[in-house]
Amino acid sequence: MAFQYLSNSALGQARENYTARLVQCGFSEETETVKVQDACGRITAAPVYARICAPHYAASAMDGVAIAAEDSFGACETAPVVLGEDKFTVVDTGDPVPEGCSAVVMIEDVVKNTDGSIKLYGPAVPWQHIRQIGEDICAGEMILPSFEEVSPSAIGALIAGGVPEIQVIKKPVVGIIPTGDELVEPCTKPEEGEIPEFNSSIFASMVREWGAEAKVFPIVRDDFTEIKNSLIKALEECSMVILNAGSSAGRDDCSAAVIESVGEIVCHGLAIKPGKPAILGLRGKKAIVGVPGYPVSGIIVIEEILKPLIEKWFHRERERKKYAQAVLTKSLVSGFKYQEFIRTRLGYVGDRLMAAPLNRGSGVVSSFMKADGILEVPQGTEGYEAGERVSVRLLKPEERLKNTIVVTGSHDPLIDELAEIIHRQNEKIYLSSSHAGSMGGIMAIRRGEAHLGGCHLLDTETGLYNLSYMRRYFPDRDVKLVRCVGRQQGLMTGRGNPLKIKGFEDIVKGRYVNRQKGSGTRILADYLREKAGLAAENIKGWEREELTHTSVAAQIAGGSADFGLGIYSAAKLYDLDFLPICTEEYDLIIPDYAWNTEIVQSLIAALKSDSFRDRITRMGGYTLENPGEIIPY
Amino acid sequence: MAFQYLSNSALGQARENYTARLVQCGFSEETETVKVQDACGRITAAPVYARICAPHYAASAMDGVAIAAEDSFGACETAPVVLGEDKFTVVDTGDPVPEGCSAVVMIEDVVKNTDGSIKLYGPAVPWQHIRQIGEDICAGEMILPSFEEVSPSAIGALIAGGVPEIQVIKKPVVGIIPTGDELVEPCTKPEEGEIPEFNSSIFASMVREWGAEAKVFPIVRDDFTEIKNSLIKALEECSMVILNAGSSAGRDDCSAAVIESVGEIVCHGLAIKPGKPAILGLRGKKAIVGVPGYPVSGIIVIEEILKPLIEKWFHRERERKKYAQAVLTKSLVSGFKYQEFIRTRLGYVGDRLMAAPLNRGSGVVSSFMKADGILEVPQGTEGYEAGERVSVRLLKPEERLKNTIVVTGSHDPLIDELAEIIHRQNEKIYLSSSHAGSMGGIMAIRRGEAHLGGCHLLDTETGLYNLSYMRRYFPDRDVKLVRCVGRQQGLMTGRGNPLKIKGFEDIVKGRYVNRQKGSGTRILADYLREKAGLAAENIKGWEREELTHTSVAAQIAGGSADFGLGIYSAAKLYDLDFLPICTEEYDLIIPDYAWNTEIVQSLIAALKSDSFRDRITRMGGYTLENPGEIIPY
Repeated sequence: MAFQYLSNSALGQARENYTARLVQCGFSEETETVKVQDACGRITAAPVYARICAPHYAASAMDGVAIAAEDSFGACETAPVVLGEDKFTVVDTGDPVPEGCSAVVMIEDVVKNTDGSIKLYGPAVPWQHIRQIGEDICAGEMILPSFEEVSPSAIGALIAGGVPEIQVIKKPVVGIIPTGDELVEPCTKPEEGEIPEFNSSIFASMVREWGAEAKVFPIVRDDFTEIKNSLIKALEECSMVILNAGSSAGRDDCSAAVIESVGEIVCHGLAIKPGKPAILGLRGKKAIVGVPGYPVSGIIVIEEILKPLIEKWFHRERERKKYAQAVLTKSLVSGFKYQEFIRTRLGYVGDRLMAAPLNRGSGVVSSFMKADGILEVPQGTEGYEAGERVSVRLLKPEERLKNTIVVTGSHDPLIDELAEIIHRQNEKIYLSSSHAGSMGGIMAIRRGEAHLGGCHLLDTETGLYNLSYMRRYFPDRDVKLVRCVGRQQGLMTGRGNPLKIKGFEDIVKGRYVNRQKGSGTRILADYLREKAGLAAENIKGWEREELTHTSVAAQIAGGSADFGLGIYSAAKLYDLDFLPICTEEYDLIIPDYAWNTEIVQSLIAALKSDSFRDRITRMGGYTLENPGEIIPY
Repeated sequence: MAFQYLSNSALGQARENYTARLVQCGFSEETETVKVQDACGRITAAPVYARICAPHYAASAMDGVAIAAEDSFGACETAPVVLGEDKFTVVDTGDPVPEGCSAVVMIEDVVKNTDGSIKLYGPAVPWQHIRQIGEDICAGEMILPSFEEVSPSAIGALIAGGVPEIQVIKKPVVGIIPTGDELVEPCTKPEEGEIPEFNSSIFASMVREWGAEAKVFPIVRDDFTEIKNSLIKALEECSMVILNAGSSAGRDDCSAAVIESVGEIVCHGLAIKPGKPAILGLRGKKAIVGVPGYPVSGIIVIEEILKPLIEKWFHRERERKKYAQAVLTKSLVSGFKYQEFIRTRLGYVGDRLMAAPLNRGSGVVSSFMKADGILEVPQGTEGYEAGERVSVRLLKPEERLKNTIVVTGSHDPLIDELAEIIHRQNEKIYLSSSHAGSMGGIMAIRRGEAHLGGCHLLDTETGLYNLSYMRRYFPDRDVKLVRCVGRQQGLMTGRGNPLKIKGFEDIVKGRYVNRQKGSGTRILADYLREKAGLAAENIKGWEREELTHTSVAAQIAGGSADFGLGIYSAAKLYDLDFLPICTEEYDLIIPDYAWNTEIVQSLIAALKSDSFRDRITRMGGYTLENPGEIIPY
């Protein structure tokens, strides 16, 4: 109805205007006094000066004897100086140097005579081994300036300088109000139509990472008055407020009206994707950020709008985003009118950083969790071609990306288990996998974009797996085929087989759910369909594609489909009935350019491990015969 | 007496042996279960699998109407399809898609008829605008592997996946036992011989930064039984224990004996400086690290020995130290037998990173606070020449170093005040100053090592300040002389002038404390001494040198000297009597290569600010006339 009412403000300009308006209204940090011992990591609000000197008295820096230096002058190996008991004082490290003494001689250099006197075989340099008053810190000296993070050693210096407490910048309290009729508290068994409310937990964790305090308010229904009351309460208790969802201009969206009723809207609608329907509002000096309901949109709006405010509050330099050049593995279309934030998997293959775009759905919170980087497509760009070099913002340390095994190919949950085994063995090594199907994996490896890929391609003429494909796509034989597992493919269907199907030919009896084109399972499905003499258009749901075995199983378990082709372990996971069709060979394709790397060899070791055998056995539907061996082709 | 009993074990080998022995004795992480909402930043102890799909039902992704897609096939602009009320359902974003529906049409694309039916002007693609079950996460999918830090978005994914709590690695509890007869609780008025105990606060802050919990035990006297009892208690309550001080082999050092009485010592004595007398001990799987009493030694031992253990506990990759090439500003002698850790100031002058070594005393905790980097001189190296390129470990971000004004020259507390003004104005800009005296500053600028230096050099022939020195040392005129302040120099002496001196010639009446050679104040002192006809050897304490005005004042206030030459503001700070001698010109030397940088210009602006005038007035003893103007020479 009302989307046209949203503005399409460029992010940078909108942020600048918003911040300026907030400052105009008095936005500024608050301060508090804390005990020095609790100040680590806090930011000073004012310069701190030492109250006493450290040391505050002339102290011995050694265990030894304190003397007047001139008493030792002239001493040498052949003519030692003897000092009577009234001419020296035994001191330990830290003891005050007695009046009249101007040097300390180390105990190792002192020879004691039986009459209590001592012998020195060399002269003492005046002031040697004495810690002068203020050697470390002088009273009145500025120990810390304003806006400096208090480090552990600064805490030592402050205590040494006699400072018991300091003024620091108070943590801003960020209120978070979740709104939405569909939301319920996090739980393990939500009803249909109920969504466990997790945005608040994400946002709270984010603002805490940035040094703020988070205060999550109870879930509010989509009701103007209820939301308004909650917002007023939050504004009383907090310095900034996130009003989550309802920020668009749809039927039930009343965030904008609520914010306007208590304060002012500086901007409604940003030229970003996801995150467009954001509201930048305020009441007095307090920011009110209206954030869209989809988690990915929310994360981006909070990071782009709220984080800079928190940094400003702390007088902290804005965090510099770290970018790297990466090669895009897939073509990408982007809206010309928007700056787009695309989550990507990243990994070094050789010395090229590969960027594989993740699911772009703004409801897919796992895409943010899996993201190693963000491709920020600027406004006015329509996208990029596969293979193009793009600048990607890094979310993970480069070192980690260099130790990440990049897997692209056929999906099997065993890949996650392999990752787990490898990472437990060596915490330095990570694994990142994208599901592209067997053919997708072959193509990625041909382009040099992955370390390995899972593959289970049936040659319908020979009845053999993978071999002919290897010969066709890797005629130079510069890629190894490595044995992984045998796995049972079959038809998954509802518990108790409600439609009483007996084989693949029966899939016309109900709604089928398919795998994507290019996946080994889809090739098998097409083969079986043709063998059964069925036309695709006669099968209900044949056009419906899912990317993984588990998501096919999930649709059947959820009741939106009746059957689909998949592996036994997926059926078992969802407690579905399973009609076995064949045992296929799921192998790994590993190019020579990756073979000799430590990370790939750690995967081969994992393949051969007992731990892998145990996990595979527990999952069910697999056979294991010499995993890790190289298969000639 | 017993230093020879300490071993001189190479750090790397000692750490490796120690860790191996601990692992042999069962050293390993503990785990605990936490609510997902509280898990941000924690490390998973086991893989976490989704319990439910997200979404867990097929949900509308838009506000609109849900239909059977095939009902819309054939619709076009000229021949819209009309659907009666029984053929569609109005849905909001997040609503379940009703049974039999396979597409959602956006509300904007729906035309409502008055009879309640709707008109569609185009066909719907099957499954459009429907979030399939498991689109985000499939039940059974591994959400997080072991040993992974939980991110904010992972918390969202976990809640969406129906996971209420997860197993994470417990924070190890590190017990800290301070020992020493001289120690007192932190306070503002310690007695002579009392040292406020601050090491525990430093160490506690450090281990907390690394993710551990710190438990500080009460101060224990230097008594075998008391220390042993405290250690036994700490071992019961903690996973690792730091026993602070007494780790050497001196008269009162009983840490080694105590550790041996409860457990085992793997190594006593490391080939590092500071930090040599460290003890690497254990009881069973619990580490006991005996740490020297001087704060700098303690920090290094804890960082090099305890931090790797905490990282191992968390299965975290060892933090990679970051190094950069820097030019050393001073020659440096290092012990051949030791690996030495030298704190340095760092700053970019042009594109060269300059490293200025800080006070090497291991009691000087402020040196760690001020350090921007650590120069790790390897064992077997005898030092470096000034101007040599060395590899320095960075403690501050490079960006900060690039925005740091490097000041080397004559000391005046006003430099700290300038830094404060600049940083409050622009939090990006920092200032780092070393006290090298006026001549030291001139030399540093000639070598291109600093952005500016304070200077107050009297030409005794002309009675003018700085001008002739500028002409002599910068004959190319590629350096600007910038007016700063006039300041009163005089003789500082105890409150009430106890020795009743009337002028410089009276300094023979007591103990003098001098400034270092090359400082402007020392040149003035030498001039005054000669004018008074006094020989250096007849003045008690003439050889005693301090680096700053405040430290000279501190010695007089502390009673270890009777007078010294210095500026009024230092005398005022310590409430000393002050006999004015002259008003000198304290100016800034700024080379052309630094002049046009943003950071130096911000300093010029600060010089001209009201804030500077206010602060200078409060400090006392200064005159201000056109600060910031360029003085021709």
